[in-house]
Formats: sequence, C-alpha cells, structure tokens
Amino acid sequence: MAASESSVKKLVKDMKAGSRLSLARLISKVENRSKDLTEIMEALYPMTGKTQIWGITGPPGAGKSTLVDRLAAQLRAQKKRVAIVAVDPSSPFSGGAILGDRIRMQSHTGDEGVYVRSLASRGKHGGLSHATKEVVLVLDAAGFDVVLVETAGVGQTELDILKLAQTVLVVLVPESGDSIQVMKAGLMEIAHVFAVNKSDRPEADKLVRELISMVGMNPHDEHSWMIPVHKTEAVRDVGVKELVGAIDAHQKWLTQSGMRKVKAVEFLKDEVSDILTEKLSHSITHMFETQSGKEVLEQLYNRTLDPYQAAALVSGDANIRQK
Amino acid sequence: MAASESSVKKLVKDMKAGSRLSLARLISKVENRSKDLTEIMEALYPMTGKTQIWGITGPPGAGKSTLVDRLAAQLRAQKKRVAIVAVDPSSPFSGGAILGDRIRMQSHTGDEGVYVRSLASRGKHGGLSHATKEVVLVLDAAGFDVVLVETAGVGQTELDILKLAQTVLVVLVPESGDSIQVMKAGLMEIAHVFAVNKSDRPEADKLVRELISMVGMNPHDEHSWMIPVHKTEAVRDVGVKELVGAIDAHQKWLTQSGMRKVKAVEFLKDEVSDILTEKLSHSITHMFETQSGKEVLEQLYNRTLDPYQAAALVSGDANIRQK
Repeated sequence: MAASESSVKKLVKDMKAGSRLSLARLISKVENRSKDLTEIMEALYPMTGKTQIWGITGPPGAGKSTLVDRLAAQLRAQKKRVAIVAVDPSSPFSGGAILGDRIRMQSHTGDEGVYVRSLASRGKHGGLSHATKEVVLVLDAAGFDVVLVETAGVGQTELDILKLAQTVLVVLVPESGDSIQVMKAGLMEIAHVFAVNKSDRPEADKLVRELISMVGMNPHDEHSWMIPVHKTEAVRDVGVKELVGAIDAHQKWLTQSGMRKVKAVEFLKDEVSDILTEKLSHSITHMFETQSGKEVLEQLYNRTLDPYQAAALVSGDANIRQK
Repeated sequence: MAASESSVKKLVKDMKAGSRLSLARLISKVENRSKDLTEIMEALYPMTGKTQIWGITGPPGAGKSTLVDRLAAQLRAQKKRVAIVAVDPSSPFSGGAILGDRIRMQSHTGDEGVYVRSLASRGKHGGLSHATKEVVLVLDAAGFDVVLVETAGVGQTELDILKLAQTVLVVLVPESGDSIQVMKAGLMEIAHVFAVNKSDRPEADKLVRELISMVGMNPHDEHSWMIPVHKTEAVRDVGVKELVGAIDAHQKWLTQSGMRKVKAVEFLKDEVSDILTEKLSHSITHMFETQSGKEVLEQLYNRTLDPYQAAALVSGDANIRQK
C-alpha cells in the first residue's frame, strides 16, 4: 500500500498548498468511502477545528440558495475564504432535485476564495450522511474560514445540521406563517438565528412578530442565547449584512459561554459513533453473504430462530440478549 | 427475573386470548424499549409472518387518514381484523402534529375488529424507528389479518415503509401534479399502487394520465408488476372498494412471483441489523460516560487522537482502521 499512502500524502500536501483539484479529489474519496478514507481522515483531522460552520436550513422555496450566495459575498467582502456545501434532498416528496455544482453560485465563478460542492444526501434514513459530515472536516482542514452547509428542511436533516453546524440559520418566508404554530417547538430547538426572507411580501411583518413572540416565550433557550429575527430580501441583497452580524454575534457567544467546546465534543461523540456504526453495517452486509449468514436468514424466515437470537449468533456476542 | 418473565408470558397469553389491554401494554413496552423487549420478541416472533402489511404514504394534505379509515371499513366488510399504525412525523417543517389515537378513527369506535395506534416517529434520522417495525411484528403476532401503516411522506420514511410493508399505496392529490416531474423516479421506486384522491377536483384526470404514462414508461419495474392508478374520493367512499381490489391483486402477485419471500428476507436482514446497531449505540453512549471514554473525548478535542483511532481504541477492535 506504499503507493496509495504516498498518493494520499501528496494530495493532502497539494491541497494545503491551495490546489483545488487535490481538494476535489480528497472530497470525492471521502464521499465515495474510498479505501483511503481512514488514512485521509488521520492526515487531515489534526488540521481541523478552526473553521466556522454555519448551517442554513428551511422549507423548500424559502430562497436558501440565493441567501447562501449573498452570505458568501458578504464574507468575501471581509476577505474570508468560504466553502459552500449544498446537500440536495433525496426525498421524492420534497420536490428537490440534484442541482449540481455547475448551475449553482455562478456569481462566484473564478473567485479562488469560494469553493462550492453539492452532495447528495445519502444517509440511510434521510438525514445528513456520515460522508457529508466528513466532507465538512476536509474543508475545515483545507483552511476555509467559514463553511456554509445548506440543507432542505425535510426529514430529520435539520436535527443533524444542529449537530454539525455551530450556528444554524433557519430561513422562512411569509407564506410559512400559516403553519408556524405546529412547527414552533421544532424551530426553537434548531434555530440560532431566524431570517424572514422575501420580506417585501405581505404578511412578512406578521411572521416576524410571531417569531419574536415565540423567542420571547423561550428567553433562556440553550443557555441564554436570545434568538434574533432578521428580515432579508436575498435577491436584492437587503438585510444580508445585518444577518451576517447576527451570526457573528452567535459565534462570539459560543466562545464566551463555553458552548463551543460542548458542541464540538458532542460532534466528536457522533463522529466516533458513526464510524463504528458504518463498520458494523459493512460487517453485517458481508456476514449475510456467507453460507452461515444465509442459513441464519433461512432459520429466521422459518421462525426457528428469532431476530434477537440471530443477532446474538451472528455478532458472536451472547450478551446481546441481556440488554 | 422470574416475576418479569411470568408477567411477559401472561401478557402474551392474554393478548392471544383477545385482550386489548395486554396488546396495548406489549406495544408500549416495545415502543419504550422496555427491559422485557428481548423476551417479548422471542415469545412473539414465532407467531408472526401471516399478516398482510400495507403501507400508505404520500404528501401532507393528500387525505391519507380518511382513506385509511375507508380501507379499514372495506376490510371489516370482508370480516377481516385490521390494525392501523399511524406514524406521526417529527419534522418541524412538515407541519405534522401528534394526533393521538383518540381523535383518529372515531368511526370504528367500539369495533373489536379494528385496533388503532399512533406512534411518534422516533428514528434517529427521521425514518421509521426500529420500535415502529417491531410494533408491527407485535400486531402480526396478535393475529390481525391486515396491518395498515400510515406515514407522512417526509424524509426517508417512504423508503423505510417500502422495506416494512409488502404493498405500498402512494396517495396523491390533483395539486401534486405540478411537482410530479421531479418526484417521478422516487415515486416509481416506492409505489405498488397509486391512488389519486380528492378526484372530484380539477386536474385529477390530468394527474391520472401523467401517472399512467409514467407507469407505461417503466413497465417492468420490480419484476413485472404493473402499477395500477386508481381514482378515489375517500370522504364520499368513492373508488375505495376498487382500490382494495388492486391491493389484493398485488398481494396475490407477491406470492405467485416469489417476491413475498424476497421481501420478507430483506426485512429480516434489516431487523437483525437494527438490533445490532441499537445495541452498539447503547454501548457507545455508556462508554463515553466512563472515565476512559471522557479521556478519549478530551484527546479527540485536543487533536492528539483522530476519530478513526478513537473508534479503534474504544471498540477494542484494531481492525477498524483496516477497512
């Protein structure tokens, strides 16, 4: 494996020297769970931990992509290097489609300070995949100042984004107001900052008032951070600078309150758990392809073995039944 | 544990004798991952495998609950015993709320042949939880002829329902037509039968034609089952009998084509995998609460250990790095 090792080392070295091609290759290897994955993560992980990770989520049609575009432009004006990860939903009912990098973010074409990558949401249960989280670690290691992770708010993705991102921006539009009552609890749990986008539309002020009222009823949510509500019109670049200011304030608060470390540790627990779960999943798939695995399935099908007995049998761990 | 053991045995015996209270208690124990879980599943599993499991999914507002109500009524007219499992979405953006059993299915109140249970969707990533699948096994053991599993089509739930249910009914409404192009691939992957509900509305015939055209372009999907498209008006009980006929036809086809066993075996693989994954998750949570687990987290946080090394360390399995 000497050739493979040197190839990963060279990719990492070139990536650190600024090569976009090497960065793209490393991301593809991580996304596709290459055999070099462990070596890549071992090489990159020590370089991580300095990047701000912002999550942007909200219902379909809220204008998230345009807003992400404008956030990136504001960050570029501050001379910050920005990576954008767009997680495309795989739910057939969400109406989302794989957009592809090429039709996204054309306004930043040619800007070496912006890197854009679309990822399919490949999580087994529709959430953010383990690969997506590790791609963000690659971008962290690559030295971007901010990584923007955009996800459609479907399924449980938004709970995953809360674990991955330090600051979560929830983007709503005036039309979201009708259903605000039912989503109240969920939104308060996820958002660190609210943006009411397309705020030139009727009912925008009503939604802003509702959100402020919701926040007011939960003033000490997550250790005293008061969730700000901002109006934006992303297409006209209105309110975006103020929004960046609100996110910056949350980032400062994270450090001052000690919550930054708490969140980082939770993320690391999840990462170790994801690694072990992925490993287990591979082992199980392999096991069911063996002769003894097939026999276990046949016994299960014939009801001469129950699933808990089967699990104990195939894991070689009799304790599994003594939960 | 003699007391606990005898209590499970008594619950199972009473459930088999028709006690609703014992059934409800067993379901609650499974849903809440009681310490008796393994014993319950070992006792019940040999009684399973005879029930038809129908999945009903579709976008919010398609009238799924009303249609499920009418399907149950048709099955009751055939003297079949029916259980209904309504999985309430937990996504804050889906607009769904926990409805609770009491406000559902009031038309079947007092009918001993219908059992209704609402479950919160507690899957870690928003899909169907492992508990939901095992609750369906309990209902299978209880001897219901048909279990109807209703889920809102959000996140990855609909892919999970395809694994759990033998026949999946996808319910659409004329308004769904606008977004049909983008969901095409996903719908064809999930549906065994389409219902265009609220078919008195304008555009219903257009949606029916689009779906028939989609089906026509994929005539040999999943080993030659041709997906039928049915118009229904659940509130007026129109087209429901014909819909039941279409589902019955799919159930016959499953047996004749050999696909029933293929699907059952896939389900059992998933069940064993879910058991082992749940066990691993408990072990990891416990491990991070120990002194050595906390030290590993501190080293991870300080970047003196990377997540793959940490995973190898805590799993006691050095092979984890040799993926």
